[in-house]
Amino acid sequence: MAAIKIGDIKIGDGSFVIIGGPCAVENREQFLSAARFVKEAGANILRGNVYKPRTSPYSFQGTSEMGLKYIYEAKMETGLPTVCEILDANLIEKTEKYVDMFQIGARNMQNFPLLRAVGQSNKPVILKRGLCSTIDEWLNAAEYIKSEGNNNVILCERGIRTYETSTRNTLDLSAVPVIKSKTDMPIIVDPSHAVGVREYVAPLAKAAVAAGADGVMIETHPNPESALSDGHQSLNPDEFKTLCSDIKKLANFLGFELI
Amino acid sequence: MAAIKIGDIKIGDGSFVIIGGPCAVENREQFLSAARFVKEAGANILRGNVYKPRTSPYSFQGTSEMGLKYIYEAKMETGLPTVCEILDANLIEKTEKYVDMFQIGARNMQNFPLLRAVGQSNKPVILKRGLCSTIDEWLNAAEYIKSEGNNNVILCERGIRTYETSTRNTLDLSAVPVIKSKTDMPIIVDPSHAVGVREYVAPLAKAAVAAGADGVMIETHPNPESALSDGHQSLNPDEFKTLCSDIKKLANFLGFELI
Amino acid sequence: MAAIKIGDIKIGDGSFVIIGGPCAVENREQFLSAARFVKEAGANILRGNVYKPRTSPYSFQGTSEMGLKYIYEAKMETGLPTVCEILDANLIEKTEKYVDMFQIGARNMQNFPLLRAVGQSNKPVILKRGLCSTIDEWLNAAEYIKSEGNNNVILCERGIRTYETSTRNTLDLSAVPVIKSKTDMPIIVDPSHAVGVREYVAPLAKAAVAAGADGVMIETHPNPESALSDGHQSLNPDEFKTLCSDIKKLANFLGFELI
Amino acid sequence: MAAIKIGDIKIGDGSFVIIGGPCAVENREQFLSAARFVKEAGANILRGNVYKPRTSPYSFQGTSEMGLKYIYEAKMETGLPTVCEILDANLIEKTEKYVDMFQIGARNMQNFPLLRAVGQSNKPVILKRGLCSTIDEWLNAAEYIKSEGNNNVILCERGIRTYETSTRNTLDLSAVPVIKSKTDMPIIVDPSHAVGVREYVAPLAKAAVAAGADGVMIETHPNPESALSDGHQSLNPDEFKTLCSDIKKLANFLGFELI
Repeated sequence: MAAIKIGDIKIGDGSFVIIGGPCAVENREQFLSAARFVKEAGANILRGNVYKPRTSPYSFQGTSEMGLKYIYEAKMETGLPTVCEILDANLIEKTEKYVDMFQIGARNMQNFPLLRAVGQSNKPVILKRGLCSTIDEWLNAAEYIKSEGNNNVILCERGIRTYETSTRNTLDLSAVPVIKSKTDMPIIVDPSHAVGVREYVAPLAKAAVAAGADGVMIETHPNPESALSDGHQSLNPDEFKTLCSDIKKLANFLGFELI
Repeated sequence: MAAIKIGDIKIGDGSFVIIGGPCAVENREQFLSAARFVKEAGANILRGNVYKPRTSPYSFQGTSEMGLKYIYEAKMETGLPTVCEILDANLIEKTEKYVDMFQIGARNMQNFPLLRAVGQSNKPVILKRGLCSTIDEWLNAAEYIKSEGNNNVILCERGIRTYETSTRNTLDLSAVPVIKSKTDMPIIVDPSHAVGVREYVAPLAKAAVAAGADGVMIETHPNPESALSDGHQSLNPDEFKTLCSDIKKLANFLGFELI
Repeated sequence: MAAIKIGDIKIGDGSFVIIGGPCAVENREQFLSAARFVKEAGANILRGNVYKPRTSPYSFQGTSEMGLKYIYEAKMETGLPTVCEILDANLIEKTEKYVDMFQIGARNMQNFPLLRAVGQSNKPVILKRGLCSTIDEWLNAAEYIKSEGNNNVILCERGIRTYETSTRNTLDLSAVPVIKSKTDMPIIVDPSHAVGVREYVAPLAKAAVAAGADGVMIETHPNPESALSDGHQSLNPDEFKTLCSDIKKLANFLGFELI
Repeated sequence: MAAIKIGDIKIGDGSFVIIGGPCAVENREQFLSAARFVKEAGANILRGNVYKPRTSPYSFQGTSEMGLKYIYEAKMETGLPTVCEILDANLIEKTEKYVDMFQIGARNMQNFPLLRAVGQSNKPVILKRGLCSTIDEWLNAAEYIKSEGNNNVILCERGIRTYETSTRNTLDLSAVPVIKSKTDMPIIVDPSHAVGVREYVAPLAKAAVAAGADGVMIETHPNPESALSDGHQSLNPDEFKTLCSDIKKLANFLGFELI
């Protein structure tokens, strides 16, 4: 497998990548602060969403174009490539000026017009697994992107819906070896959204490394208690730094190339 | 609750409605033939999809605008109001010239830009439950439509994903009394997509009536064996006529007003 | 299919049976009171459990042999045949002196030694579906009973575990036509345990009739508010009488033979 | 937490334990052969079942007392402590003469009389999680054992039932940190039964170590192709040795004490 490249960063092909940042870009100060400690912790890619797909129309819906400018500013300052979720094909043109990668969220995994639209872009795409999608449906969704000419698809396991309520969803780490046996696309793991509880994030991030994932996506916030969304699952800066350090040592021990 | 009106048809408020037709509008002859026997069977609304959300990009993707013209022709001939699934906000303007109601499919239940877009239309919307959506998420999705000013939302239970494999999905008829206790929106039931097996459709359609649903949506095709999609769950014309007759008798016995 | 007979009662083969009573036999007064109004409502079989399989060892565990005597007394007074859940093969010999049918609960559906033991008894057995058992596993469990010589097995759908939390479990009424297509064993439905909410019991009981079930099992208690277990899903005597009357009319309309 | 001791072996409290062996004790040669390479690979405890809880009554049901003798012989020869699943309280007395630990399988997690019976024994008990049990139900099941005086309970995560079919069940590694946060009982992981596919066992066993489990249970067979049950998920001797070696290095790197 050839790795997917975003600037100097490689995803797949024996590299291990850490993507970090807050769930939502809330304001300039919050996001630049996050970008700085994400960089300092040694993570490789900066995440931040400006369009928020919220269950209720009356919840915080994101900072939109203003947020994109903060993402761009954070990239310029830290040098980190960036990723942002895209919800609407009509916003791709505007968004791709500011960010390096697109993310398709779990709710949109079978939003076929949107998949085709990011397939026509030249940006790498992180395709999250749908909340109750089978692995076969996920691979077919990736085909919608690739069939338009964009082969830079990174799969992201983020938990599936089950009856268990101790965690928000059930992280399906079996997906890592299953995907490895069926395709050569890279697969990363998002334990933060899967478990929804801060203290469970670190053990499952390490488990993802040991299972053979090509990277992890970790939610972190300068001040989780004041986050506008998902604060209860966000690591604070110190927790994030410790976890990045632990992950890098473990990935190194297991033979991954670190960036 | 005031009923939702589509021409002379009422949905909700004690009426019982039968929506019938094929999964996909395949060609003029197939669809007009279907429309005629759907009318003759006594069903109230004609369904037919022209944009097909298929798991794989390499499967049949629908007849698009040509199909819309057949839907319109079928309506003109039979007098039946029509409903068609919409996948892409950019196609609403074109589609609404031809059809009387929109359907949002299970895969798009949390496609928030699309929900807002049909919320700005003046057509009634059938909102199918997501494959693994909770009832609360479903009601919140309906709020996305209503928050834009369109209160004509009809919920449609179509089966949820579980571990059981004897049926394609598990029809959750409990949703009917739960929805009735939480909201005054009408709720209809689609047993065809839920079970995916022709012989189980009739008993579950009758069960939906007895559970108190405001209507059913039944898949039927002039020649199920040759259907381009979902033929194995489509009733043939005779089966459909028998079922419509049985449903009407049962609904009448249970005190529903028939149209 | 030959019906299964318990005294004058037939289960299967076109008959429709109503089994009613409280979840637990709590004391003489409560159970005899229940038995009287169950009889008066026109139900056919009286249920009551004396061994309670509770999630926690510190919850109420049942009245055991004392409860069996109340069941017997209730049968003598009302003439209703009785059914009681059995948890332990060692208690079969004692229990079968007092009751007419055994019930195997959902938690024990794959307790193979217990299945074999009731298979050696000559009492009819109601075999509840396991909380996450497939229909094939359920039919195999029935084989454990039959392979010991007892062919009088009645299947009982009682809800499966899913992610949905509006109801305790998800009643899978599709199981009714699936079972009818695969076997000639009678199948009854227990909506009370499936939904766990009193107001949803009646619509789903009627749905079970319309789906073609051979009977229903309904939980009812002289005073649900004071029940030692599952009071929130028990009908009070008036609700139970109304439901029995409605079910009988519906079953009659649908062509079932009433007992 | 005080570790649970079986001879010189400690489970919990910073130790990492490997339990290996075939699903079923098939015959003397097969089991002694397995015991030898399990010992040689550096595993700590030998497993082998003689009572087989099979879905169908017509499948291989186990070697019963003859098998117990082979387990005892294998222990005498290799010095490895042994564990065997128990299905029936009436067989505890006979079985405990031959084996060092009992296992309660997933199907019996809520077989309360059996839990109480092993609670009265003085052998450590591995309590597997039920196929669709919540973590709270699992902890309550452990209470049934402890409430009878036996505190030597080891929990074993073995996969839960979901809609995904690429693996037999979905291994819920989140259970490891959840259990660690709620109780001081040791928790081990059985990836073999969870995934049901040989090639996925090793990555998930390593993931279990990284998630913080106290041990793993791995299925292995001298000749998987000829196994009477579950051969497709059994490692062959070479695969097992490699995995044991990898697990030990990883556990050592992560700070576990190896036995």
